Amino acid sequence: MQNSNFPKPQLIHSAEALLNSIEINKYSRLFILCDENTHRFCWPILEEALIKQKHRFTLHVEAAGEATKDWRVCLNIWEKLSKENADRQTLLLNLGGGMVSDLGAFVASIYKRGIPFIHLPTSLLAMTDAAIGGKCGIDFMHFKNQLGLFARAEAILIYPPFLKTLSTDERKSGFAEVLKHALIADADYWEELIKVNPENWQSLANNIEKSVQIKSRIVEEDPLEKGNRKKLNFGHTVGHAIESYCMKIGQPIPHGFAIAAGIYIESFLSIKYLNLPKEVFNEIAQTIQHFYAKVDFSEPAIDEIVNFIQQDKKSEMGKSRFTLLKQIGSAEIDVEVSEMEVKTALLDYVAKNG
Amino acid sequence: MQNSNFPKPQLIHSAEALLNSIEINKYSRLFILCDENTHRFCWPILEEALIKQKHRFTLHVEAAGEATKDWRVCLNIWEKLSKENADRQTLLLNLGGGMVSDLGAFVASIYKRGIPFIHLPTSLLAMTDAAIGGKCGIDFMHFKNQLGLFARAEAILIYPPFLKTLSTDERKSGFAEVLKHALIADADYWEELIKVNPENWQSLANNIEKSVQIKSRIVEEDPLEKGNRKKLNFGHTVGHAIESYCMKIGQPIPHGFAIAAGIYIESFLSIKYLNLPKEVFNEIAQTIQHFYAKVDFSEPAIDEIVNFIQQDKKSEMGKSRFTLLKQIGSAEIDVEVSEMEVKTALLDYVAKNG
Repeated sequence: MQNSNFPKPQLIHSAEALLNSIEINKYSRLFILCDENTHRFCWPILEEALIKQKHRFTLHVEAAGEATKDWRVCLNIWEKLSKENADRQTLLLNLGGGMVSDLGAFVASIYKRGIPFIHLPTSLLAMTDAAIGGKCGIDFMHFKNQLGLFARAEAILIYPPFLKTLSTDERKSGFAEVLKHALIADADYWEELIKVNPENWQSLANNIEKSVQIKSRIVEEDPLEKGNRKKLNFGHTVGHAIESYCMKIGQPIPHGFAIAAGIYIESFLSIKYLNLPKEVFNEIAQTIQHFYAKVDFSEPAIDEIVNFIQQDKKSEMGKSRFTLLKQIGSAEIDVEVSEMEVKTALLDYVAKNG
Repeated sequence: MQNSNFPKPQLIHSAEALLNSIEINKYSRLFILCDENTHRFCWPILEEALIKQKHRFTLHVEAAGEATKDWRVCLNIWEKLSKENADRQTLLLNLGGGMVSDLGAFVASIYKRGIPFIHLPTSLLAMTDAAIGGKCGIDFMHFKNQLGLFARAEAILIYPPFLKTLSTDERKSGFAEVLKHALIADADYWEELIKVNPENWQSLANNIEKSVQIKSRIVEEDPLEKGNRKKLNFGHTVGHAIESYCMKIGQPIPHGFAIAAGIYIESFLSIKYLNLPKEVFNEIAQTIQHFYAKVDFSEPAIDEIVNFIQQDKKSEMGKSRFTLLKQIGSAEIDVEVSEMEVKTALLDYVAKNG
């Protein structure tokens, strides 16, 4: 029901410019949401700039980690906003990775039927994916993003030096989404990316702009995921199922590691369903194997992973529809895939990455 | 972020037609939300039609009353939907008054980022006001509708015979919104309404269509309340404050009774700020006095009521802006009103209705 024009994410290269691109005087007050990590590593940069410009603010810090995407946390924040009489012109600044942007946008969109919010993504995943496109929400009863909505940020301000604050695993995790963007939309970009070193923040920082543009363009054209936005699900139908399985057996892995495996497996399926040439599959598979260790599951786990696929939020009337690749840079949505072929593809992954 | 076209409410005169106007086969399953009252008085009519057509459904009944607009209740419903694996094609039917439509639309809009819902309003208030226009939400920490959003129903189906199931107070309560619609938009309609007997359901049923049209047209033109939708707030800035005050002192009154007092008091303010002719004010005042007993508060309560006005969700940057009348059928939004004049108007109400 909101304005459906998404803001264009902006890449910004100094803390002062970051602050200057927020029209703080438009708002009655400023709330900042961060987690313990971004509070420690990213907040000082922003705080210094805010204090220098003599802006007043209220800071709210939550625990880091997916468990914070919970309704109890939402109630805490709504209570704080209510007690401080925060009105509808209050701005919420979400300083953090995907957890903070998912949670913050959800909290802001529901408080008094919606207050403005701005994302300052601090992880590679949030910069290129989570903070762009309006999806937000929290987990519920072990279902990821079970409660949520589409919400429009006032702005998305990307400050690449925040990439410095990430661990290698966090960088590599976000890089899976970047690879996906190239695979579904831009073959030249793919050629550039295979030369990037995701362990080096500067190498990443130099190569994220196209990823931001691809995600941004796709969600702009189809904000409510009725059509082409589903291209972004490439790697995710299987990836999410692997992620859920690993969580269930008590060995959680970073989101992007599961997506990388999902990219491998869904590229394999693309040979069968969209005639993706085998040598192209091999190139994708080798790239994934180069950047990512195999996710550790074996044959007996396959049935459980298939179960998770069938429970997916995206499945319609009980059918699983995948986004698959025709070529590098070109994807097709809503491909109906049989359970047997999914099992075959999972088996190939287990065998080839043994 | 949703499609901003609201559905046009439809008046429907038989239970079969009601059911036939829902394309039940479009949905994977059917959930019905009602409260104890609508379960007892309205549900049997719908149930019979559903069973006759052999539709399967899940029924969920909550306690009647404003206290049910609570996040704990939302969690109950989300849990039930999750446990039953309700997918995104599940339809939620909200069978009830304003409480059920506010709660049901909120619950539906957040579950899996939004499932479709249809309102079947059963009270006069819901038929002419609450179920139209997309506002939904729950109460939080004694703030009415503190958590909510704008959401688009698939359809709003009005079955006037449900008015039979209401108490006299419920009919009169809804009638205050109907009077308001005439006052802000249609002088001829006002002339018709002053002859209606709100205690008689058939007399009401014959006269609600214009009210539905007025509300529907205004929200269609300004879904997010940036401009003219604020006209609908006439009577509500003071009315909500009176309602909150009565709740606080443990003597709650029906919503429309507070709005009727608000209409009186804001019409008085309209003399001062928009030159509403005194004789027109007298006509409005006499009509309100004819239909409604005075709300029982006296001089010492006035400061508290003024405090509630200042805390209103609609106040911006600390200023109270009212919708006032220029004439019967013509309203103006965003009139800045001083605290002193509000007090004078409240005093007049206390004195004249002594």
